Amino acid sequence: MGRDLSSVKALTFDVFGTVVDYRTSIIAELTELGESKGISADWEAFADMWRGGYAPAMDQVRKGEIPWKSIDQLHRMVLDQLVEEFQISGLSESDLVRLNKAWHRLAPWPDSVEGLTRLKKKYTICTLSNGNISLLANMAKHSGLPWDVILSSELARHYKPDAEVYITAAALLDLHYEEIMMVAAHRYDLDAAGELGYRTAYLSRPLEFGPNGKTDEAPDMPYDIIARDINDLADKLNT
Amino acid sequence: MGRDLSSVKALTFDVFGTVVDYRTSIIAELTELGESKGISADWEAFADMWRGGYAPAMDQVRKGEIPWKSIDQLHRMVLDQLVEEFQISGLSESDLVRLNKAWHRLAPWPDSVEGLTRLKKKYTICTLSNGNISLLANMAKHSGLPWDVILSSELARHYKPDAEVYITAAALLDLHYEEIMMVAAHRYDLDAAGELGYRTAYLSRPLEFGPNGKTDEAPDMPYDIIARDINDLADKLNT
Repeated sequence: MGRDLSSVKALTFDVFGTVVDYRTSIIAELTELGESKGISADWEAFADMWRGGYAPAMDQVRKGEIPWKSIDQLHRMVLDQLVEEFQISGLSESDLVRLNKAWHRLAPWPDSVEGLTRLKKKYTICTLSNGNISLLANMAKHSGLPWDVILSSELARHYKPDAEVYITAAALLDLHYEEIMMVAAHRYDLDAAGELGYRTAYLSRPLEFGPNGKTDEAPDMPYDIIARDINDLADKLNT
Repeated sequence: MGRDLSSVKALTFDVFGTVVDYRTSIIAELTELGESKGISADWEAFADMWRGGYAPAMDQVRKGEIPWKSIDQLHRMVLDQLVEEFQISGLSESDLVRLNKAWHRLAPWPDSVEGLTRLKKKYTICTLSNGNISLLANMAKHSGLPWDVILSSELARHYKPDAEVYITAAALLDLHYEEIMMVAAHRYDLDAAGELGYRTAYLSRPLEFGPNGKTDEAPDMPYDIIARDINDLADKLNT
């Protein structure tokens, strides 16, 4: 806390949960698809398990059990497992392809577009997400997220929080670590970036995991900034 | 000519010469620096040789004579040679660092920002330049170029027109070749992209090489679109 932030030139943002509200969007798409196809299921549980399946799937790649896969591919792998587990029938291949792309159509939190637009005036604003480039580009287009640069774990062929992701991002931006601030609603992401020398900003997203969910917040977090949302971050960075 | 373009989802733009007028910008920066330091030289010739030195420098990398270098590094390599050749003294290391970054501050052609803004409503608009990511990001910021995605040869570790560059771009965009249109003022670039199946648009930039320069235009060019400038391209794509 209290470190000098005047050297910061770029902000790299985690996206899922930090900039967009994936849970509400995914539940809405599942519910709509279910209604149109006459399929009923606990879509909230389905959505939570879809998101929940993604960390173990990444671990399979990390351990070399399966080859490198983009997040689109990991989402599809988990989706196929859940369709079986939930005993859902009546979805065609093209339904599944479209459903899997629900992750390209996630809605931003209410403050995201305004806050990013403010920050963009002073900083280079970038994604730094485990989402693949095409997913992030489509989402930005869909939701009006005004990124300067779309960076992704895909470019390092490692997922966050592997150090390679943050190292690759800094190399591509041609910046020193202390010239970059990682912004995320998740401590593991900030801890990994901070370890290298990135500046860090924690963003509260109390509804990320739904009204009964538990966020990653903890007392005395060692980050440079703790912000309520992206507008609050813009305030705290005097933009 | 006359191929169906309705499948095109993304436009990938060459940048130097096609979107920005590097020659005028570089001459202006050299002249200004010269005046402030009391150095006189034929800055037009210097600028042309700086740009001209870049293709042979890329070839040295291609042949494996020198390891991979970003365009920033190649520009610096050529700059150092020219400073010697023109017998210029009185420039400090920080002058040279700043001068080399003149390539991050190139001014767009008068139609570029407006034309790109129009095209962005219908297409994903991307750079696909030999310029490195940080150069392209800084230039976009400096000149208000509204890119959706910044793609670069740097991501393939090959320079255009090597096929790897266009293959990597399509993979990152997760698009088929026929869903991408390469836009450039240079035939070698369009030929290489078209070879793979990209759609192609030739843009006239009669002043790229100065008032006495010779453009790359030829009769009966086999491209999908021949446009006068980016606004004309937007017209021809009905945006």
